[in-house]
This record gives sequence, structure tokens and C-alpha cells, in this order.
Amino acid sequence: MSRHGIRRIIAEREEELPSSEFVKILKIAEENRDIISLGPGEPDFTTPKNIIAVAKKKLDQGFTHYTPLGGRSDTKEAIAKKLKKENKIDVNPENQIIVTVGAKEALHLSLMSLLDPGEAALIPDPGYMPYRAMAETITVEPLSVQLKMEDGFEYDIDEIKRAMEPKETKVMILNSPSNPTGTVLSKKKLEEIADFAIDNSIVIISDEAYEKFVYDGAKHVSIGSLNGMKDHVVSIFSFSKTYAMPGFRIGYACGPADIIQAMTRLKMGTTLSTPTISQLAAIEALGGSQASVKKMVAEYGRRRKFMWKRLNGIGMECLKPKGAFYMFPRIPKGKHNSSMFSHSLLHKSKVLVVPGTEFGKYGEGFVRMSYATSYEKIVMAMERLEKVLK
Amino acid sequence: MSRHGIRRIIAEREEELPSSEFVKILKIAEENRDIISLGPGEPDFTTPKNIIAVAKKKLDQGFTHYTPLGGRSDTKEAIAKKLKKENKIDVNPENQIIVTVGAKEALHLSLMSLLDPGEAALIPDPGYMPYRAMAETITVEPLSVQLKMEDGFEYDIDEIKRAMEPKETKVMILNSPSNPTGTVLSKKKLEEIADFAIDNSIVIISDEAYEKFVYDGAKHVSIGSLNGMKDHVVSIFSFSKTYAMPGFRIGYACGPADIIQAMTRLKMGTTLSTPTISQLAAIEALGGSQASVKKMVAEYGRRRKFMWKRLNGIGMECLKPKGAFYMFPRIPKGKHNSSMFSHSLLHKSKVLVVPGTEFGKYGEGFVRMSYATSYEKIVMAMERLEKVLK
Repeated sequence: MSRHGIRRIIAEREEELPSSEFVKILKIAEENRDIISLGPGEPDFTTPKNIIAVAKKKLDQGFTHYTPLGGRSDTKEAIAKKLKKENKIDVNPENQIIVTVGAKEALHLSLMSLLDPGEAALIPDPGYMPYRAMAETITVEPLSVQLKMEDGFEYDIDEIKRAMEPKETKVMILNSPSNPTGTVLSKKKLEEIADFAIDNSIVIISDEAYEKFVYDGAKHVSIGSLNGMKDHVVSIFSFSKTYAMPGFRIGYACGPADIIQAMTRLKMGTTLSTPTISQLAAIEALGGSQASVKKMVAEYGRRRKFMWKRLNGIGMECLKPKGAFYMFPRIPKGKHNSSMFSHSLLHKSKVLVVPGTEFGKYGEGFVRMSYATSYEKIVMAMERLEKVLK
Repeated sequence: MSRHGIRRIIAEREEELPSSEFVKILKIAEENRDIISLGPGEPDFTTPKNIIAVAKKKLDQGFTHYTPLGGRSDTKEAIAKKLKKENKIDVNPENQIIVTVGAKEALHLSLMSLLDPGEAALIPDPGYMPYRAMAETITVEPLSVQLKMEDGFEYDIDEIKRAMEPKETKVMILNSPSNPTGTVLSKKKLEEIADFAIDNSIVIISDEAYEKFVYDGAKHVSIGSLNGMKDHVVSIFSFSKTYAMPGFRIGYACGPADIIQAMTRLKMGTTLSTPTISQLAAIEALGGSQASVKKMVAEYGRRRKFMWKRLNGIGMECLKPKGAFYMFPRIPKGKHNSSMFSHSLLHKSKVLVVPGTEFGKYGEGFVRMSYATSYEKIVMAMERLEKVLK
């Protein structure tokens, strides 16, 4: 690349990053106030008041200094207690937990700690868009494991094997409840994957950011709690979704001490420490009343019920998602592709949805719709879609 | 590595990280309450009240959501204004500024945006310890540019050339005012380095975290403001030092649009966005009263004067540093090495100093002492050192 007369040396790792159709769509939406966005990947709620109150108090008390690389001891202890009680994962807070700048940094550090350049990682496809970017960022090859609608977007062991054909790998990213499909893997399915991981010496990076968002009696099971998995799983959690705290940038990972310690050492080269006030607010989030979490999840559940019913009524075939806050319907028959369909919805109905291809090549034929927006807006959006699609 | 019966695959990048003697010393210090630490790399002050007040207000107003990858527009505009006024750097806030999780993340992203695995970067030696870790973290080879006490720890162009002999590189990290030496590069020296960069198509990553900490009439000059350097410099700044905000985790970089845009895209794979409250507090930091900054710098100056005089009086030869908040004295004649000397000081005088080798192999024969601790403690520390060294 030559610009301004000097040869610029942008790294190849950057040039490998997937280009985003979604960014273009967002740009259009920004300029049109009357567009209803079903795009958001974050809660529309603000952080519960009890957490805000603690953050403010700690600011007044002068907690504005660095913390240790891996996080404050009290924060890690609160996390260990939660992991034991809610995830049935038993770890030593001293060397098996790291507090990170969002679940995002935990993913970045875990991939870096396990993989060298040129190696590969299995990622779900369709799956959370940054997985691919994260791998490319550290020049690791992402290998798509296809998830199919006819399997309920669950993992099929044969598909995992097929994904490893071009290149073997020892690392696999798992995401349940899933963004974008809303699938919650059953304990039986997780046991099947666990067996495969043990047999093939695979370390699973389990992204459980949506652990609390399960509906219709579905239960979230942490694969790290399953028999024999203690040494095979890095479990990653977030405060962003559960406690509506994305702006605080805090998440955490737990797992085998050697991996967590490697991640902690690598953090010296990424962000040094996680925001101090966020770490203190996190203690209140975990230890304080969970009433607002229940309330938020109930409200998401109400929207989900409505949206799913309406979508299927207007010809957008959609599995009933048991988790997260997304629907992943098929685009109607006769429509060209996800990207063109999304653009045409934006144009004709002023409703923003995300093309399925943003989540990998196997997302073609689908779009993602978030219900992390108000019930009223969802009602309006469905009315607009109905007019255009009928 | 085989543990718990499975073959663990910790990445080589992690195994290349330098091991830290400092971490061992810190451990000992933690267990001894009567130790005076001259170790800290962060202000002993807490964040000024006007900044805390804004952070609290913004928390109440519900600013708890994500921001765009590269930062909020208002934050970037405030930064652009400051850069123009104080650094004489003129950039477009839209595509030439990125707000990051501390200056640390700006360094991480700039190295990633410019270098692919197996390439190399020039780093100052002695220099800020994480530079080396940052390079190793992304499997880039760090090439030490030796800085010598007899040159006032300034950069010597011949040393830069020598450092590039084993491997050519197009990236060089510059740090003025310098941690650990306290050197402030003169405009003349910066112009010399600028010419070299232009002639050799080198991009300079200029870490200016200590820009406000200059004494004895020294002036901080941003190399990015020099003639012809617009396309050759990524300038990196921090709120952690200037505004005593390390726990907020916020810094920023500016530079050529192609590099800043690459960094912004890479942030999708690292931390997604910088803490929202920190970005809003940063606007107040830049736009509000600078009285507390002046007060803090004056107090550092007072400690600096005292410490420097005392050190030279007790046989620890030390250049009078013109910037940052560190002294980098030579260890007394007859002492074995930096590490053993530091351990012996800790043991005999209960004063914690950092071995020079923590800053690279050319730090051997020196120790770093921070004056980011109270005047009273510095007085006591010097008394203790005097007893042991006389």
C-alpha cells in the first residue's frame, strides 16, 4: 500500500479481518432517525441502581489506582463463590481466575495463551462475529464448524471432525446460549462434546456470556462442570449482559491454573489491569440483590414470545430460541441473499436486521434480530415487516 | 508440558515472556509492612475531584452502554483539541484518533497493526518493561537499542543502526520522557531521529505517557509535530499519569489514518470498547481546571530535587532526570549486580527498588527508584539507604 509518498506497512493480520456489511448498515441507520433497529448486541437496560451506587461510593473512596494484573483478590473471591454455587465449577481464586476487560479480552487472552501464529481454532458458524476477527488478529486460522437449522443449530460431532480436516487443532470455541441462534445446548449434547474433547485432547473455550438468558425451562449447564473436564475448559463469563454493564468493560475467565496464569502474564502486554471501579461494582453485582436480573430476563422473555410468534406468522421461519436475546429466522423463499434482504428491509420498512453472513458463511440465508429493544418498538417493527413481506 | 494427564499446549508466545525479578521482590514486600517501596510506576495521588464528580454524574445519567470501537465522538474531539494546542499535532478526530484501554492497549494495537509474526521492533534498552512483553505477546522480535548513561540515556543513531543489524525493521518505539531513566529528549535529538526515520521509512511509536512530567525548564516535544513526520508517527498518550487515573484504564493514540483505522478494526478482537465512564471523565480531565495537574507536578519536582541530591551524596551516581518520576542511579562500585543489590537493599534497609535488568539487559548495573511516593517516605528511605551504604 502506498499513500502519502511512503510505503505503509499495515500488518497482514489486519488485512485478513472480515469486512463488515453490518457496519455499512449501521451507517445508513445512523442517518435515519425513523429506523427501528433490531441490531443491538447489548441490553437496552441501564445498570441496576445498587451497582451504580457502589461504583460511585468507591470513586469517592479513591479507588482509582491499578489493580494486580489478574484482578483484585476480593473480586476474584466473589467470582469463585458464584462459580461454585451457580456453575458448579470449583476453582482456586488465587490462580484459576482472571478478571478481564469484558469477556472479549478473556477470549483474546485465552486464544493467545493456547495458540501460536499459523495454528488453528474451531469456531461456530454461524457464530458471534468477533471470534473470526479474534483469530485473525493473532494470525490464527479460524475453522468453521457448521451449525445447521435442521439440527436446531446444535453442534454435530461429525461437523467438528469435518472442520478439522484441512488442519488439526487443539482449541475449540463453544458458545451456549448462542449468539446469533439463541440455541441452548442440552446437558446431553455437552457431554457428547466433552467426550470428544477428552478423546482428542481439545481445550474448549466456553463463552457463557448469556448464561442467565434462558427461557421455557431450559437450563444453562457449564461444560467446565462436567465430569473429567476440569483440565479441558476455559470458561468465560461477562457482566455486560447479565447486569447490563457493557460500558464497565468487565468479564472473567476460569480454568486450569497453567492456562489462567499464562493469560495473566499475557495481560501485561495488552491492558495491564481491568478498570478498578468496574471490579468493585462487580462484587456488588454478584453479591447484591438479583431482583433486577430476574426482572430483565422476564422482560426479554415476554418480547421473545411475541417476536417469535409474529415472525413465523409473516413467513419468516424461525426456531424458538431458548436463550440469549436473538432470533435467527430464515429469509423468505425467493429472496436473493441475507445481505440484499437486510438492505431491502432497511430501505422498504425501515427496520434494521443483521445479515446472517456477518456470523460466518453458513449464516447465509438467515438474518439476526435482537429483542434487546423495547416491546413497543418490536411491535412496530413486526408491523412494518408484515406490510413489506405479505 | 504434561500436567494432570493431558498434554497442555501453552503457546510459545507466552513462554517467551521475560520472567520478572520484580514480581518476586514485590511478593516479599507485600509480606513486610515496614518496607518502604520506591517501586511504584503509578501516581500516589488519587484522581482530582472534578473528574470524579463528572464520572459519578455520568453514572447516574445511565452512561453504561458500549461506545463505538474507536471511542466516543465527543471524547475524540476533546482529544483533538488538546493535541493541537499542547502537542502541535493536527489530526482529524474522526479517523486519526483512537481511545484505548490505557496507553498500554494503544501500544498493543499499534504493534499489531504494523507487524506480523516473525517481524521485529526496535525498543529502548533500558526501557519500559512491557515493551518487550508486548512484542513477545504477538510473536514479534524485540531488538534492543542500547541507551547509555554517558550519552545521558539519549538515543544514538549508530546504536539504532547496530540494533537493526540482525534483523531489519520498520517500527521503533520511542519513549520521552523516559521510564526508567527520566530522560527528556531535546528537540534537536528528536529531529535527528526524525530524519533517520524518514530516510529509512521507519514508523515511530512514540509513547508520551509522561508528557506533563518535565522539570528544570525542560520542554516536552512531540516527535509527531516535527516537519515531515505526519505519516511516520503514532503518538500515544495516557490519562493514568497526568490525571492520576490509572484505574480508569484510558489512553489514546493519534497518527496516520490508515494505521489508526487498522488499530480500530483490531480492537474488535481485543477489548471492543474503552470504558464509557472513563471516556466521559477524560473530557472533564482535558477541559476542566488543570490546577491539580500543576500541583502534582510541582510536588513530584520537590521530591525529585531532594532524592537526586541525597542519592549522589550517598554514593549512588545518578543523572539528574528531567522528566517522568524515576531516578536511575548506578549501583555502587563493588556490588555484584542489579538483582543482588536490590535484594540486599530490601533485606538490609527494607527499601524496595527495581533492578535495572527489569528494563532490559542494558539496565544491568542500575536500579530504578520512583518518587511517586510521599516526601516523608522518600526522606526515610534515603536515611535507611545511607546507613547501609556508608
